[in-house]
Amino acid sequence: MANGKPVRPIWFEAETERLRIIDQRQLPHRLVFMTLKSVEDVVAAIVEMAVRGAPLIGVTAAYGVYLAAKTSPDGQVSDAYLERACDTIRSARPTATNLAWAVDRVLASVLAQPGPAQRREAALAAARGIAALEVDNCRCIGQHGLPLVAGLSRQKKGAPVNILTHCNAGWLACLKYGTATAPIYAAAGQGIAVHVWVDETRPLNQGARLTSWELAQDGIPHTIITDNTGGHLMQHGMVDLVIVGTDRTTRNGDVANKIGTYLKALAARDNQVPFYVALPSSTIDWRITDGVAQIPIETRAADEVHGVQGRTADGAITRVRVTPDGSRAVNYAFDVTPARLVSGLITERGICRAEEADILRLFPEKAEGLIFRQP
Amino acid sequence: MANGKPVRPIWFEAETERLRIIDQRQLPHRLVFMTLKSVEDVVAAIVEMAVRGAPLIGVTAAYGVYLAAKTSPDGQVSDAYLERACDTIRSARPTATNLAWAVDRVLASVLAQPGPAQRREAALAAARGIAALEVDNCRCIGQHGLPLVAGLSRQKKGAPVNILTHCNAGWLACLKYGTATAPIYAAAGQGIAVHVWVDETRPLNQGARLTSWELAQDGIPHTIITDNTGGHLMQHGMVDLVIVGTDRTTRNGDVANKIGTYLKALAARDNQVPFYVALPSSTIDWRITDGVAQIPIETRAADEVHGVQGRTADGAITRVRVTPDGSRAVNYAFDVTPARLVSGLITERGICRAEEADILRLFPEKAEGLIFRQP
Repeated sequence: MANGKPVRPIWFEAETERLRIIDQRQLPHRLVFMTLKSVEDVVAAIVEMAVRGAPLIGVTAAYGVYLAAKTSPDGQVSDAYLERACDTIRSARPTATNLAWAVDRVLASVLAQPGPAQRREAALAAARGIAALEVDNCRCIGQHGLPLVAGLSRQKKGAPVNILTHCNAGWLACLKYGTATAPIYAAAGQGIAVHVWVDETRPLNQGARLTSWELAQDGIPHTIITDNTGGHLMQHGMVDLVIVGTDRTTRNGDVANKIGTYLKALAARDNQVPFYVALPSSTIDWRITDGVAQIPIETRAADEVHGVQGRTADGAITRVRVTPDGSRAVNYAFDVTPARLVSGLITERGICRAEEADILRLFPEKAEGLIFRQP
Repeated sequence: MANGKPVRPIWFEAETERLRIIDQRQLPHRLVFMTLKSVEDVVAAIVEMAVRGAPLIGVTAAYGVYLAAKTSPDGQVSDAYLERACDTIRSARPTATNLAWAVDRVLASVLAQPGPAQRREAALAAARGIAALEVDNCRCIGQHGLPLVAGLSRQKKGAPVNILTHCNAGWLACLKYGTATAPIYAAAGQGIAVHVWVDETRPLNQGARLTSWELAQDGIPHTIITDNTGGHLMQHGMVDLVIVGTDRTTRNGDVANKIGTYLKALAARDNQVPFYVALPSSTIDWRITDGVAQIPIETRAADEVHGVQGRTADGAITRVRVTPDGSRAVNYAFDVTPARLVSGLITERGICRAEEADILRLFPEKAEGLIFRQP
């Protein structure tokens, strides 16, 4: 919801054939929409984080393949042209596995078609299919996660369940419901009292800017905290549950999520607070089993650390520099939370433990040809 | 050092009888000095964090008692007047134990004197004595911590020792050398290669604004990171040592330091990185043994979380709002790191384990009349 109306962070306007997005860089101060017209537009939107969040990056990339087909300069939509365009899209950001997953899926549909018109149609159909799939995944995640929140609510005799989340894994990061937020919205929808601790999530403040805005739009009680605060809250019994998203999940349940997630997982374990990760299976990289060693961690511009964007007293949106001019900064965008710190994974097929055998119980089709680790 | 000249964050100008401070709110963009003329000025400087850091708060408060004596309205410097003034100063901030410690120490000196003139003199002498003591404490902390850094340097065959610190426990927080930074400056002074990871330390960015500025003034290599980043660095072997300060230390080694310190201590333990706390014994509250339960944690204005101060492109210093107008924020200023996560305490008398028996080995005069816990 935005201003009381249903809206999505990306949608294809059939009548105008335009791909439209919310420019998330301007939230929460302005709700601004943009049109993406080309592969270059799609890559720029992903790189500059006008769209962000693993599922949304995947969907945007999927539509990017359609835009490639639509804008093929010679009208031929040749294999070589498409593959070049897909390489460009895949290279936009390195960590979220959904990006390559979605591109590969659309590309396969397109390459199966003989001529330009069919290829354009197939690309659009495949992109729409991925969008629909992610909406359905998030809906299912909400349903599977709901009993966790409901159970805590019963234990607390109806007092608000305090849920901490990091970054934004809400509908702005997906299409609808969100991943980490889906069980929260589902619980609130059933009248269960919840309160969300929103980590601000430096450097780009996706929590302070986006999750807070999302929750406010739906009237969900929430409090913004600095990223430093979660441990203190947990020490004092002020967090009942942590739910976060993931940008890439290993076959055995390590999760790469926004930098700082690992610190919250450590605090959750130290204080016996359940720590759940909500994910559509599109974030699982079935080829890897060691997140710390194998998941590529994006390094973004140091300027994101040196400064902050916000609204001045006179309403202008501007950046301010916090650090001394001579000092260096570094900006790792993700970290890896080892499976041993994860209480469970909330997937579209149900909840499982963060270990290969239990993940494969839900996704048995992925077991084939791969070594089973002893549980 | 500031602009190549030695400077302190507070000093008493004997010729003009003026108490001068650096207004730390304006760093790193401007180096601005202020004069504190009254108890009200001292309280405002502490509350608004023109001065901050446990040792510096203590020294400023000590001079505040002198200013109370100097500005006694009827010139009498009566016991009742002094005690009222000291209550006001003590209530400026709740967490750092140095505040009450320093006030009590100066007050005792003053009350021992019979008349106004002697009382003014005694207050100034006591305040100067505390300032001199804290300088000496920090010098000793540097000497005792130096072998830790030197040992790591030898292990690394002279490659830079990577030290992570949180907030500012440098000379800006003390008077000279700093606490957490004292071993770093001492090592650098001996030609040992060091590199400091500087946590930005939201919400007030004491790391990004102050520690970075301090280190740059002395030419110490450093890199600013978001508070979310330390765990990732430790997972990848990029941190050799963590050193932080403390605002209040329990008798058995729990430490209250800037919010977020606890999360770094958890990450250090999870990655076998040594985690040391540097402190003058003026931060030890000898009456308490359970930091999480017994140390009062200051809650500061939510606005500090909602926004950030920095420098705009045209050089103005301004605040920007990051969060949506309707969202709530909360601002806990400190958290408690339990002694079990602390590798050792670096005090002015040497290094000890974070446990009562070993602390009392260094401070045997504090054992008297109090129960010894089994080590």
